[in-house]
Amino acid sequence: MVKWNKTTLEISTHGKGLHDITETVRAQLRDWDVREGMCFLFLPHTSASLVMSENWDPTARADLETFLERLVPEKEAWYTHDLEGPDDATSHIRAMLTDTSLTIPIDDGNLSLGTWQGIYVFEHRARPHRRKVLVRVLDME
Amino acid sequence: MVKWNKTTLEISTHGKGLHDITETVRAQLRDWDVREGMCFLFLPHTSASLVMSENWDPTARADLETFLERLVPEKEAWYTHDLEGPDDATSHIRAMLTDTSLTIPIDDGNLSLGTWQGIYVFEHRARPHRRKVLVRVLDME
Amino acid sequence: MVKWNKTTLEISTHGKGLHDITETVRAQLRDWDVREGMCFLFLPHTSASLVMSENWDPTARADLETFLERLVPEKEAWYTHDLEGPDDATSHIRAMLTDTSLTIPIDDGNLSLGTWQGIYVFEHRARPHRRKVLVRVLDME
Repeated sequence: MVKWNKTTLEISTHGKGLHDITETVRAQLRDWDVREGMCFLFLPHTSASLVMSENWDPTARADLETFLERLVPEKEAWYTHDLEGPDDATSHIRAMLTDTSLTIPIDDGNLSLGTWQGIYVFEHRARPHRRKVLVRVLDME
Repeated sequence: MVKWNKTTLEISTHGKGLHDITETVRAQLRDWDVREGMCFLFLPHTSASLVMSENWDPTARADLETFLERLVPEKEAWYTHDLEGPDDATSHIRAMLTDTSLTIPIDDGNLSLGTWQGIYVFEHRARPHRRKVLVRVLDME
Repeated sequence: MVKWNKTTLEISTHGKGLHDITETVRAQLRDWDVREGMCFLFLPHTSASLVMSENWDPTARADLETFLERLVPEKEAWYTHDLEGPDDATSHIRAMLTDTSLTIPIDDGNLSLGTWQGIYVFEHRARPHRRKVLVRVLDME
């Protein structure tokens, strides 16, 4: 029988950077006892995003953060969208280059991630924010 | 009972830039009377793409467009793919950096977007085009 | 009746570049005789990714590869993540800019791709690798 599970995670970010949510999502799947199906993640924000990346060596994350800081710096003379400060335009551009939704298979009661693959909320704002992650699970068992 | 709804939106773009399709998708969900489930959007094109971004201040969109114009300009000496003109290689590269598919939760009969979050077709071709957006809805009610 | 199909494709890449998997995925759908529904692809790796792009003219693919090689070159003085060699940090950054998951509609027993749209594994490592692609199909017939 096909079942549908849903919840909203509330994440506190500490300003710019990658925030690991892998274990939070995994714990939720265990609570629901989902054995097999699909996990859909959606971020209802436009100045943060979702990213999957290496979760073993912290320098991998540091390089992702530095890359975006260099490619889309806060101060560009041509930005026109700065109502909320110098991190305004750059936040939306960084979000466009990464992801708003992710779909991850569930097998044997767990996310089928690679060995060193983690799920991150990428905060693009300078200051800490409360972010929501909508979790939807299609349970095919 | 699980139901499946589908349609194809036909969008006329006006050359390069972001084209808002949020209300078109929402109207379709109301027509189908879908209360809860998942909305899948897919763009069957390689020189346009899908993007979610801020829908309140038009300068946010302008900066996204300017960013891609600067990062992937029309004229680069190293482009080899120019059969269809100077906007050929750059279109495919811009599409690669953004999205071809999006998955958005539906709750209480509406897309669960953030307050200022809109759905856009990003046209990467210089001239106007007719674009298709495949809409698939998994109705879990 | 809703059905669920799944398999894991094993792909051998030849070092950096785009590897076409469109026909492999299509053949799998024919084997399962899926007429209508949704195809979910997931790559459980952090130094390779998924991309949809033009499949007709090989120069289109060459330009995508050259673009990433120029935007995220192997040698940058500021990279800190180089435990596995000069292609380490750049691989994760390239993966972040492209996709880990794709969702593609299935209609009339086939993927609803555009005429010149192909599905690729983008290898970001210099040396050949074995990569997995998790294929999940929601059969709505």
